[in-house]
Order: sequence, then structure tokens, then C-alpha cells
Amino acid sequence: MLLHLSTWPEVEAYLKQSTGIIFPIGSTEQHGPIGAIGTDAICAEAIARGVGEATQAIVAPTINVGMALHHTAFPGTISLRPSTLIQVIRDYVTSLTRAGFTKFFFINGHGGNIATLKAAFSETYAVLNDLQVPNGDRVQCRVANWFTCSSVYKLAKELYGNEEGSHATPSEVAVTQYLYPEAIKQAPLSKEVASGHPIYGAADFRRRYPDGRMGSNSALATPEHGKQFYDLAVKELSNAYLEFLSGE
Amino acid sequence: MLLHLSTWPEVEAYLKQSTGIIFPIGSTEQHGPIGAIGTDAICAEAIARGVGEATQAIVAPTINVGMALHHTAFPGTISLRPSTLIQVIRDYVTSLTRAGFTKFFFINGHGGNIATLKAAFSETYAVLNDLQVPNGDRVQCRVANWFTCSSVYKLAKELYGNEEGSHATPSEVAVTQYLYPEAIKQAPLSKEVASGHPIYGAADFRRRYPDGRMGSNSALATPEHGKQFYDLAVKELSNAYLEFLSGE
Amino acid sequence: MLLHLSTWPEVEAYLKQSTGIIFPIGSTEQHGPIGAIGTDAICAEAIARGVGEATQAIVAPTINVGMALHHTAFPGTISLRPSTLIQVIRDYVTSLTRAGFTKFFFINGHGGNIATLKAAFSETYAVLNDLQVPNGDRVQCRVANWFTCSSVYKLAKELYGNEEGSHATPSEVAVTQYLYPEAIKQAPLSKEVASGHPIYGAADFRRRYPDGRMGSNSALATPEHGKQFYDLAVKELSNAYLEFLSGE
Amino acid sequence: MLLHLSTWPEVEAYLKQSTGIIFPIGSTEQHGPIGAIGTDAICAEAIARGVGEATQAIVAPTINVGMALHHTAFPGTISLRPSTLIQVIRDYVTSLTRAGFTKFFFINGHGGNIATLKAAFSETYAVLNDLQVPNGDRVQCRVANWFTCSSVYKLAKELYGNEEGSHATPSEVAVTQYLYPEAIKQAPLSKEVASGHPIYGAADFRRRYPDGRMGSNSALATPEHGKQFYDLAVKELSNAYLEFLSGE
Amino acid sequence: MLLHLSTWPEVEAYLKQSTGIIFPIGSTEQHGPIGAIGTDAICAEAIARGVGEATQAIVAPTINVGMALHHTAFPGTISLRPSTLIQVIRDYVTSLTRAGFTKFFFINGHGGNIATLKAAFSETYAVLNDLQVPNGDRVQCRVANWFTCSSVYKLAKELYGNEEGSHATPSEVAVTQYLYPEAIKQAPLSKEVASGHPIYGAADFRRRYPDGRMGSNSALATPEHGKQFYDLAVKELSNAYLEFLSGE
Amino acid sequence: MLLHLSTWPEVEAYLKQSTGIIFPIGSTEQHGPIGAIGTDAICAEAIARGVGEATQAIVAPTINVGMALHHTAFPGTISLRPSTLIQVIRDYVTSLTRAGFTKFFFINGHGGNIATLKAAFSETYAVLNDLQVPNGDRVQCRVANWFTCSSVYKLAKELYGNEEGSHATPSEVAVTQYLYPEAIKQAPLSKEVASGHPIYGAADFRRRYPDGRMGSNSALATPEHGKQFYDLAVKELSNAYLEFLSGE
Repeated sequence: MLLHLSTWPEVEAYLKQSTGIIFPIGSTEQHGPIGAIGTDAICAEAIARGVGEATQAIVAPTINVGMALHHTAFPGTISLRPSTLIQVIRDYVTSLTRAGFTKFFFINGHGGNIATLKAAFSETYAVLNDLQVPNGDRVQCRVANWFTCSSVYKLAKELYGNEEGSHATPSEVAVTQYLYPEAIKQAPLSKEVASGHPIYGAADFRRRYPDGRMGSNSALATPEHGKQFYDLAVKELSNAYLEFLSGE
Repeated sequence: MLLHLSTWPEVEAYLKQSTGIIFPIGSTEQHGPIGAIGTDAICAEAIARGVGEATQAIVAPTINVGMALHHTAFPGTISLRPSTLIQVIRDYVTSLTRAGFTKFFFINGHGGNIATLKAAFSETYAVLNDLQVPNGDRVQCRVANWFTCSSVYKLAKELYGNEEGSHATPSEVAVTQYLYPEAIKQAPLSKEVASGHPIYGAADFRRRYPDGRMGSNSALATPEHGKQFYDLAVKELSNAYLEFLSGE
Repeated sequence: MLLHLSTWPEVEAYLKQSTGIIFPIGSTEQHGPIGAIGTDAICAEAIARGVGEATQAIVAPTINVGMALHHTAFPGTISLRPSTLIQVIRDYVTSLTRAGFTKFFFINGHGGNIATLKAAFSETYAVLNDLQVPNGDRVQCRVANWFTCSSVYKLAKELYGNEEGSHATPSEVAVTQYLYPEAIKQAPLSKEVASGHPIYGAADFRRRYPDGRMGSNSALATPEHGKQFYDLAVKELSNAYLEFLSGE
Repeated sequence: MLLHLSTWPEVEAYLKQSTGIIFPIGSTEQHGPIGAIGTDAICAEAIARGVGEATQAIVAPTINVGMALHHTAFPGTISLRPSTLIQVIRDYVTSLTRAGFTKFFFINGHGGNIATLKAAFSETYAVLNDLQVPNGDRVQCRVANWFTCSSVYKLAKELYGNEEGSHATPSEVAVTQYLYPEAIKQAPLSKEVASGHPIYGAADFRRRYPDGRMGSNSALATPEHGKQFYDLAVKELSNAYLEFLSGE
Repeated sequence: MLLHLSTWPEVEAYLKQSTGIIFPIGSTEQHGPIGAIGTDAICAEAIARGVGEATQAIVAPTINVGMALHHTAFPGTISLRPSTLIQVIRDYVTSLTRAGFTKFFFINGHGGNIATLKAAFSETYAVLNDLQVPNGDRVQCRVANWFTCSSVYKLAKELYGNEEGSHATPSEVAVTQYLYPEAIKQAPLSKEVASGHPIYGAADFRRRYPDGRMGSNSALATPEHGKQFYDLAVKELSNAYLEFLSGE
Repeated sequence: MLLHLSTWPEVEAYLKQSTGIIFPIGSTEQHGPIGAIGTDAICAEAIARGVGEATQAIVAPTINVGMALHHTAFPGTISLRPSTLIQVIRDYVTSLTRAGFTKFFFINGHGGNIATLKAAFSETYAVLNDLQVPNGDRVQCRVANWFTCSSVYKLAKELYGNEEGSHATPSEVAVTQYLYPEAIKQAPLSKEVASGHPIYGAADFRRRYPDGRMGSNSALATPEHGKQFYDLAVKELSNAYLEFLSGE
């Protein structure tokens, strides 16, 4: 059930059965020479919708732009500052808590979002308490990264070994290829690819990772791999969501 | 050209030909008993992509959640506070200005966004100046509402007369039906529908507009009408975008 | 009744009869070679006081500085950022709501304030709800521009035709001349005056409108015209205020 | 020279002779049973204009609303939060520094503003430095309270002794009576008046000071006294302003 | 009783006897050629702990970094902006008010903190009221500077006369020497030392006060003096704290 | 070398040899019935100073209060909101970057700080870039948790097995006992201790963890263990710091 295709009376009815909601959150950031800028949002959205179908959960519109400040030296990247993203999450969760939702499950496609999301959850719990929002003290937020699912991780290692890398990975590119086969890109990739550097500011990042990839060989991706990753992630995160829902 | 399906080298190449970008912006808010909660985002996104195709412009990911505080007494509505939305717009525009974009065309599906968008543009111009962002003093932002296109307005009046209303209108519902025929909703609509009240806070809004519609008979919508509205809006806004681009 | 000349027991007594209050809001910004920098505040204040007398309403101190970022490339202009003005309005309205006021009528002299004011109203309604301020859900804010009164507009067209323009207009200059005849300024005005350009940042504005006027011939103003505009605006806005007060 | 009655070319000319500007700042807050709510703004404005005339300085529009949170339990009081007032001062000073002003002299009518003003000055110096505003490192802000002028203080002691008190004082009421003799108020004042309590929150303040006065007998004020105070303050602050201007 | 060495059940027990708490607040800023950068925090912390012992009060961890923007042109200085410090104080006081504390006594070692602290107290009282924090309307905050104790001031004048100055004073350096005799510094001090200049921005400060001292001869300090100052301050502030506690 | 015991000329000299600085960061939060409220700050401070000595690095004053919102239902806890802590870190790092520091090593004693610290680093890199702070693009921040050092972790497992838990752990209590043997606390600890629950808001946390411990048997701690943990952490983090310093 997709929130954006539902009516408010349908949401009202849904809330009688469940107070859980799934938020896809990605990023709009460079993914190397052949990875799509929307990779993180595309993967998160598709997987979240798969989870929604499998679990009868409502899926909210995708947060397309996340915390990607370190990628902003590459054109096409859009980033919120962490302080902005915290307010965005606070506003989203507060709006829906007032309607009766209490379990917020963020299916995340971007490692760079995790820290800010967790900070935002803490901030939001305090706001809900400060404002005495009804049932605010029962609100629970959880971030679940599809790319750290153990089944996903295992397959990525099997298929790509060290060439999986950590940004513009073949696994995430594969998922986008499965979903948008018409948008598969070709470009020469340097054999050598930087890896292992810590992440600081945007200019520093581009100096260290000149084509945007971090240790990955995005060219190994195939749409067929993408389907496998998608299926594994949907299955594992569906279980995780149901467990989250049933947790006290 | 969709930003989220492009690579950063493609964006770099695009910038050599154009510094314009289109942002769909909608809202996630109740649209009465049969209108989809995502109506404003759905319409803005589709029309923006149509304009992007017609004009060879790059289209950014949709801003799905806007300023809908007055709808938050209905479940399913999500809203940013104006102060949050201002920071979001500031972050988006600043990110892309640093990459070389200077013309930001927001195709908007929600009347409630307009004031905050305009405030955000002013705030952003000042930030770009304060931070001395290169070419920041040449940045131009424009909001273009598909639903106030004269051709759209004319057709809506012809088809629906006063039953067009001003929220959960048959015209916007029609566009969603054209795009998502599988999600057409049926529900009994009261003959009487409130209209003409000013908009204040959320509780007040729900008291005045108990089913969420503002003077509209959403049931008049058909997918065929939706296609007509879509075509008119794409055409008119394509011209508007090209004019915006060519303006000094 | 002027708030600043009243005592708190007088305000307490007033609140037993009315919960309405009038706020003049203007701007401190360049108004071309012969228009006063305080034009927007001067006009708003005088007209608001006229309305206050005509309707027995209490009139608050004038908000002299508004959102005029686009004028800041001309010396003497002072502007709040939109995000600041939102907090100012939030503070004003919250202070007075706690005292019992519920109807806030902003008589506005500056087009550039409108968007931010509307955003501020939305933000404020949400704050009042968040903080559970007593009667907060009944608070209503309205912006009424004296210069868009239909009677004012009609007279301006009759007197000046297209030379009315849209900034440093003869009509607003005339009102200041009526109120401060001792401060009438003379300066050569170029025959050619820029007009019709959209408004972006401050440097851009000054490039497009080198002497600050937007399509106006301020020199057509006379104190006698000013009195006419003043009278029309007071009359029309008095009716608007009473209608606002009596609205549910 | 009043900023709001000047044109921008006049300000441009002024800046060739002086980069100083005077800001009246007051408050909109209860002043006991017979003191006007605008007392602090009225006094600051009039005295600032007197200083402006005496020193050929430009006088900006009055900041009517200051930091009066502790008075907000009395109806009619309006207050900015300190965090808001800091942003307001930052915006004012930044706007004018970009135009060439460097010496900002705040003539203040309200003790409660002092701490926040000083905090705001520090914040603003840092902003000017952060943003590398031209000449920003030469900006100087000063707060000068008319009511702490030694000549004023001496006269108040002579005329009223301990009955001067510290809020709704006969001296400040006298100045308003001199300026607005038509608005002199009468009301029975309790002989006993609280004094000497520290100031905490608004509810606490009203418990301690039930009629709003702090140790003062406002009824001792006369318009004649007011003129004396006005003259002394204008003289002493004119000297202070000139000294401020000539300081390196 | 030191908060950081206590357990939460001990704090719970303490609250049954007292709702007061002492906060040392200092600064991390240059103190001239021989004064320690931590002088203000060191003095405040030690004296606060002395007061805590003398009065059986709980002492919170030291706020080491305060408002020292004007010292930031000297290496080693760390400063919060006033707007940040206000939020810090708001968070501290709100956290502890929810636990039952109502009397907050800030023992302060830095003149530059005073204005922002007072602004922060006002902001915090309003937040406590806005959020309806239980007993929030009874919260009282007080800043007490050890260096303005009359006994301290008197001794400083006796020992140093005008060479006490107003920053990097021998009295505060003496206290640090008493506490950290192993860290006494030697360096040639110019005979001439700037004094009497007002304080504006950081670059301006360093121009006026090239070695960081303000009118002081820090070299007069001795550990023995330090003990005397320490004893006087502890005694006087212990009385002040007890008086604060017993005040209604 | 301790920043707070150094003079500014000493810092200036230090900067010629190194641009690194160590920040201890802890928390002020409940640590169960026998753990000190300052545990996290105490451990971080002592270990940071040990690292400073071992590596000749300058050590800044301890950030005593961190992000502990989830512990605020226990008396004595003080927490910053994440949005506040982000501004604090931004202010600290910006102050010191202007002085020439570029390598910021945060030795952290509290798991709850990690997410917000990482968000703060991202925000700060962007601010440094936005403000064009000299060398700002070379600034590097790193968080290093003493309790996740592999040597520490190994010893904790050896000594305590599963009774180490994850909050109010015997290992961290042991370090405080080593440092403050005079403050060792005794109290009956329930055999049963909650563990494994996720962390949401403060009220929820206290419901799940009624005495504040998370799966730990704090009573296993001894001062001798504490010394061992301290030594291991200092050694491991000294290496980590040197590696950080020498990294490009």
C-alpha cells in the first residue's frame, strides 16, 4: 500500500490494523562514471515497496535527497546539511505521530545517512516528549540498510569479492539496472580505483576518489544480479520489519 | 533527462549546454475521500518529466513533501514547517549552484507551497551572496504552478465550472487517474461541500472542511480529462521554461 | 486605540470586547531617487491607525523592517531574512495569543513581505498547536495590502496609468507626501525606467533597476493624491477588518 | 536626519561624511497601571531623534519590540525571544554594513534589552568576519541607555528619591507625558509597591509584581519633568555619540 | 558533592533535600603571555567546588568553553557563538528541571559570558513555560561572578591597584597558580599594556591588545595571593548561594 | 600538553610542529546504581590526557555533556539535543581551524555521541567550505572510542564475559574506580538485568532498563582492572592518533 496512492480514509482504516510505516530514504549523489546519481533512492524505493507488498505495510514517499555533503564536489549531487535533515525527519515523524503512527521503519540506501538519521531519531523523541504529543513516548524509529543485509552482503562477496568496494558498488548498480534496464550506462573505468581512505570534506573526497568510486568495479553489475539482490533484500527486510512491528 | 538516472559525467556534459534544471515539487496531503494523498507530487512529477522531455532539460528528483501544515489534522498528511522547507530549498539550490546550475524552475503542484517557496528563494539568494558562491549572483529561481496555467484553468472551467473548487479538484484528481488508472478510488461524496473559507490552522481547517475537499466535486474526474490536462500543462510549462531559460 | 499609548489594564478591558488587533507592517528599503526609504512603513502605519480609529480596534507598533533582501544593494535598505521574519511573527503572535488575542490583521505596505508573512502564519499556527497555547487553535492571521485595495488600484490607474509601475509608485509616494509634506523630495528622474523584470537577488535587482524604481514615475505624486489614497485605503480596509472580525 | 524620510541617494551622500547611525530600541511591555505599554520605545525614539538632530546623525526606524519575556504575563506585552532578537540585530547590522555603515549606536529604553543586545553584537561581529563582509572587521556597536545617563539618574533621584524604582519609573513615564500629553493616564496606585525581587520567568514576575510596577511611584511623573529628562538625555547622549564616532 | 562522581540514586536522594545545583562556567581563551588559556574555567571550577563543599550543594561538570569570540584571533581560544551557548544552557537547565532541580547557580569566571548567560536564562524560562515543564515556572537561574565579589575586588585593589586591569588579571592568574603551581609560566611582559578600549570583534581586539592583556600586570600574581582570592571567593559565594537557595 | 594550562604563545609554538589536537568527549548521564554520572567524561578525559602525554599532543578541555537524551528520565542526566551538539562541534572546530589546527581527534567515552559527532563533522566540513576558512578543506575530524579499542574489548570479554553488557559496564566503572578510588560506590544490584532492547526515547528507556544498566554487572569492576583498561586504551589510541596525524 503506497501512501501517495491512498486516500486519507484509507489511511484511517489502515491505522486500525497497524501503526507502522515504511520510509524509503536514499540520496542524490554521484555514483561514479556509470552509476546513476539516484542509485541510493532508486534502490531504497524499490526495495521498500517490495517490503510493503510482502508485509501489507504502508510505504511513504521516498526521501530522495539525504546527507551527501562529501559528494558535492561532483556535479549533480544534492545534499541536505545534517541540521536540515534532522528537521526534516522531525517534521515527518511528528506529522504522522499526530495521526496515530508509532513505528517508523526507514529503509535506507545510503551509508552517509545513517549517522544523521540516528541523531534525528534522538532529537525527534525529545521533541515528541517536549510537545507531549499523544503516544509520543511510544514512537520507535529504526533505520535498516538494504546493503548491509547479511544475505546481500554474502552474495556481493560471492559475486564480486573485493571489487564490491564501498561506493558505486556493483551490487547497488545492479539493482538499478534490474529496475531501469533502459538506463544502463557504459563508460571506460580505470582499472585502478582508490579505496580505503577516510571521508572528510567534499574537496578532499574528490581529490582522493577522482572518478567518484570507492574501491568498486561498478562494471561487474548486471540486471540479473540486481534481481537477486532485490529479492534477498526484500525478503530479509520484510522479516526485519515484521519483527520491528511485533517488538514491544 | 532525469537527474536520478544520469551519471555525474553526463551532468557535467549537460552543464556545457544548459545551466537550467527543473524541480517537481508537490505535497503529501489529504485530497478528500477519493483523491490520492500524493496527488500534488504525482502531478508535478509527471508534468515536470513531460516538460523535461519536450525541452531537453534535466529533471531533478521530486520534492514529495511540502508545506501542508493546514492538512495535518487528516491522517496520512506529512508536512514540513516553512522554516524547514526554506532550509531544504537553500540546501538544494546551493548544492547545484556550486556545480554550475543557475536557473531553477520549480514545477509546483500545491498552492500551499508557493509562499514558502518564494520566501526560500529570497533567503537563498542572500545565502549565495553571503557565501560568495561563484555565479551565485546570477542564480534565478522560479515557481510555475501547473494548475494555474491559463490553458489548464480554462479547460477546468469548461469541464467542471464551479465544481472545480480549490482543493481535491477534479482536474488534479483526473491527472492522477490518467497516470495511475489502477488506483482510481470510489467513495460516496456529499453533495454539499464547504468552500470559500480562509485557511488557518489544521484543526480549524478540518472543522471547516470535514471531508477535506474545498468546494470541489472530485468525482467528475476521468482519466481522459487527466490526459488533456497533462498535455496542456506540459505544453504551456515547456514554453514557460524555455522563456525562463532564455531570459537574461 | 494605540497599543503603545495604552496601559495593560486598558488592554485587559479591550479584550473583553474584542480579540482583534491590527499590525502595520512595512519595510525600510530604497524607493528610488525621490521616494522615502520608509515609504512602506509610513503608509502602513498611517493607514492602520486610520483603520484603528474607524473600527475602535487596537493598533500595535509598526513592524518597520520587513523582507527587502532584493533591495539591499541600495544604501539605507535594511532587511530581515525570511527565516528571521518568520520567528519575529511567531514571537509577536504567540505573545499576544497568550494574552487573549485571536484575530491578527496585518496591514501591509510592501509586496515583498507577503510570501514570508503567509509562511510565518502557517508556522505560527503549528507552533500554537504544538505548544497547546490556550485558544491557539482559534487564532487567525490575515495580511491586507493597502496598495491592492480595489479602490486604491482604480484611482492609481486613473491618475497615473502605466506610470504607476510597481515600486516607488506615485501612489505610495503620494501618501508619504500627504503625511510628511515637509519631506517632499525633488530629483531628476530619467524618462526611461526599467520595468517588467522578474526579481531575483540584490545585485541582479540593481543591475536591472539602476535607480531603484520599477516602471514608476514617482514624480507624479502630490500630497492631494496622497490624501485620496489614504482615505480610500482606510475605508476599504476598515470594512475588511470588520468582516475579518465577524468571520467565524 | 531620519532614515525613513530619506532617499537612498541621500544616504549615499551621508555615507561620504559619516558611517555612523543611531538605532532607537525600546520594548512593548506593560508599565504598570498608568504607564504606557510603548514607554520604552517612545522614550528611545524621541531621544534618539533629538540626538540625531543635535549631531547631524542619521536615525534609523525604532525597534519597537525587544526582549520583554518576563512581562508577558501582562496583556499587551509583546516580546522577541533572545535568539530571535539576536538574528534581528544581525540582519540589521549586516544590511547596513554592506552599504558602508560601521558605527552602530543603539539608544536603548529598556534594561531587559541590554544583555541580549550585547550577545547580538558579539554574534554579529563573528558573522561579519565569517562572511568576510567588506570593512566588517571595523564595525562597532554600542548600546547607550538614556535612563542610565548620569544626569538623568541624578535628576530622578532629586525628584523622586526611592520612589523612582526600576520599572514604570516616574522618570520614563514623565518623558512619555511630555511627548504625548494627550495620553496621560490616571488610575489608583497602591501605596505599597513590590521591589527588590530578582527577575525570573513571566508567571513568577507577575506573582511578585502584581500591578507591574517595580518599586516605582509612576504617579509622580509630570510632563515638565519629562522635558527635563528629555533635554538631559539628549545632551548627554549626543556627547556620547560624538565620542563614539570619533573613537578609533 | 560532585555530580559527575555521584550515582543517579544519590541525586534522587539529594533532590529530597535540595533542588539547587551549582554550575561552574568559564572560558577557553587567551590570557596573555603568562596566563593559562583555561584560567576562567579553572578558577570557576575550583571555587564552585569549594562552595559546593561549604554548602553541601551538588556541583555540575564545568562548562569549559563560553562566549569568547573577541579572543579568537589568538591561537588556542575556543568560543561558542552566543546563539549556541543559549541552546546549551537551555538544554542543561531543561534536562535538570525535568529531574526536579529548580535553582541553578552559575559560578562564572568570565565577564564575556554574562550577557549571553542572562539572555539564555530568559530564553530558558520561556521554553520551560512553552513546554509546560512541571515546576518550570519556579525555575530560577543566577549568575555569580567570583571576580566581582566585593571581598575579591577589594583585595585585588590592595594588592595590585590599577595593575589589576580587566583581563589576564593578576588575581585570576594567582588563583590558577595556587591550584596548579607546577604550571606557573614566565615570559617577558611589556611594561606598557593597552587598556580602556571597548571590545568589538576579534581582529579589532588583537589590534588594540596585541599581547592579549587588558591593562593588567599578570606577573604580580603569586600562588599565595591565589589562595587568598580563592578563600574569599568561596566564602562570599557560599553565602550568596545559600541566600539564593533560601529566597522564595 | 593541556590546552587549558598553556598560554597562547605556547599554542602558537606548538602549531609550528603539529596541527593536531585531542578532544575528550564524554557524557553526564546515569550509569546505574553504582556507576558515576560522569563516567563517560571521566574515562575520556583521563585516557585523552594519557594519549596526549604519550604523543606530545595538545589536549583540549573535556566536552562533559554529550548526547544522552535517552537517559534523561534518570535524575542527574544532562543532555544536549543533537542539533545543539552539532553547533557546539562546529563552533569548536571553526575556532581552532582559524588558529591553524587541522586534525581533530575526539576521544569518546559514550556510544550515544557517535552518530551526532559524525553528523557534526559533515556539517562542519561544509561550514568551513562555505565560509572559505583558510585550510578549511584540509580539516579532518575523527572519533575514536576508547571502549571499542580491540585490546579493551578483549580484556573486557576475558574478565567479564557477557556481564560486560553495554551500559554501566564493569570496564568503564573500573576505569573510574582506578581514577577516583575514593568515590567507589556500593549498592545492591539486582541479579537480573535487562539487555538487548533497542533504544528509543527517555521514558521508554527507563521502562526497559529500570535501574539504568544495560546487561552489565557493574559490581565486577575493580580499580586494578581499571588500570589495565586505562593502559590498554592509552596505548592503542596513541597509535591511532599518530596514524591519524601522519595520514595525508
